[in-house]
Amino acid sequence: MAEAITLERIMALQAAYIRCIDGNELERWPEFFADECLYKVTSAENHRAGLESAIIYADTRDMLTDRVLSLRQANVYEKQSYRHILGLPSILKNGGGEAECETPFLVVRIMHDGQSDLFASGVYLDTYRLDGGDLKLARRIAVCDSSRVDTLMALPL
Amino acid sequence: MAEAITLERIMALQAAYIRCIDGNELERWPEFFADECLYKVTSAENHRAGLESAIIYADTRDMLTDRVLSLRQANVYEKQSYRHILGLPSILKNGGGEAECETPFLVVRIMHDGQSDLFASGVYLDTYRLDGGDLKLARRIAVCDSSRVDTLMALPL
Amino acid sequence: MAEAITLERIMALQAAYIRCIDGNELERWPEFFADECLYKVTSAENHRAGLESAIIYADTRDMLTDRVLSLRQANVYEKQSYRHILGLPSILKNGGGEAECETPFLVVRIMHDGQSDLFASGVYLDTYRLDGGDLKLARRIAVCDSSRVDTLMALPL
Repeated sequence: MAEAITLERIMALQAAYIRCIDGNELERWPEFFADECLYKVTSAENHRAGLESAIIYADTRDMLTDRVLSLRQANVYEKQSYRHILGLPSILKNGGGEAECETPFLVVRIMHDGQSDLFASGVYLDTYRLDGGDLKLARRIAVCDSSRVDTLMALPL
Repeated sequence: MAEAITLERIMALQAAYIRCIDGNELERWPEFFADECLYKVTSAENHRAGLESAIIYADTRDMLTDRVLSLRQANVYEKQSYRHILGLPSILKNGGGEAECETPFLVVRIMHDGQSDLFASGVYLDTYRLDGGDLKLARRIAVCDSSRVDTLMALPL
Repeated sequence: MAEAITLERIMALQAAYIRCIDGNELERWPEFFADECLYKVTSAENHRAGLESAIIYADTRDMLTDRVLSLRQANVYEKQSYRHILGLPSILKNGGGEAECETPFLVVRIMHDGQSDLFASGVYLDTYRLDGGDLKLARRIAVCDSSRVDTLMALPL
């Protein structure tokens, strides 16, 4: 069990991750991922059907960095912000320096004029990996409950 | 304290419970309860007034199983899904293999066409019991904040 | 590390705090604070701009008690209730009997007629302090994401 990852450590990473996005520190967002990683946003419908099509897809950390650069150029971060609320994580596998974990999420979007709405709900399908002493996301698939979310997507989930 | 139930264990059960419902594995839902159990969904107004009337009432595990069978026959599970987000549990009593706990919840409902809304909020009044080595719900009263929720109720909370 | 405050203890205080407000036991609310304390509700916009203006401001526990008295006289508590859902806390500093912590929140408001809406989202900027053996809030700044929240504010966040 020396290689099991504690729930407390997973929760600390999750808390730091949403604090980074919601606090508009997007440049630090790729640091939560391992060099070799998969980040994907998809809908429950597509996920159930095993479809590859994704709303956002990145399989290297450099792609995440590129995404942040595009967002900054588009000035999206000035027009809206998110508030992530995460539910309790279910650890499904743990050992050998890797843990698989599912965590429900809910995202409120706040527009520049103060209008708030329930933007997205869903579940993170995560793989955490110990990388040296550091805990990193090796995989995060954000499965959105609704298939309506795509065209509005801007900030990462 | 050998018989105190840890917070971590309660949170793990809660995480598994909502994962079961939100992931449409309703057949496994009754397994979270002890053989002798009480499951009740009511409104804050009725609960405060001490009224017995409930939106859903089951006092054996078989009644929970029956409820799932009815839901499956009505095909409700194809028409909508839930996303539960649970807040922090307050453990109010703990000892002798039983714990009383209150946990706020919020449920988003996602209709088949992708429409999402805030379906219900409220608090779980729970009693957890160690049954052999297993942790089970001996009682879950889901007290919904609003009295408007009843006629729409379908999946369990 | 004898003076570090555990995450579990912070979460227990947070759970008790929202249970107190959402369960309409406002008279106990000031007890969560140290004698010397700061409680402030503000908007993200004002907070970013470093503006002092606040929606609610109290820098002694007596001011919190006064606020509860006013609310009771105005009978606000009969007309609406809140349901707080808190996300994962990020502990930013910990030692010497004090901890700084950020915690996202979401508040659903339930009106007397059963209408529910997403009332506020934001983040608590907290300082916890060990006061004798007791854990107290030395500072809670509730930074609301939207600047639209102010005129409707009634119950504490």
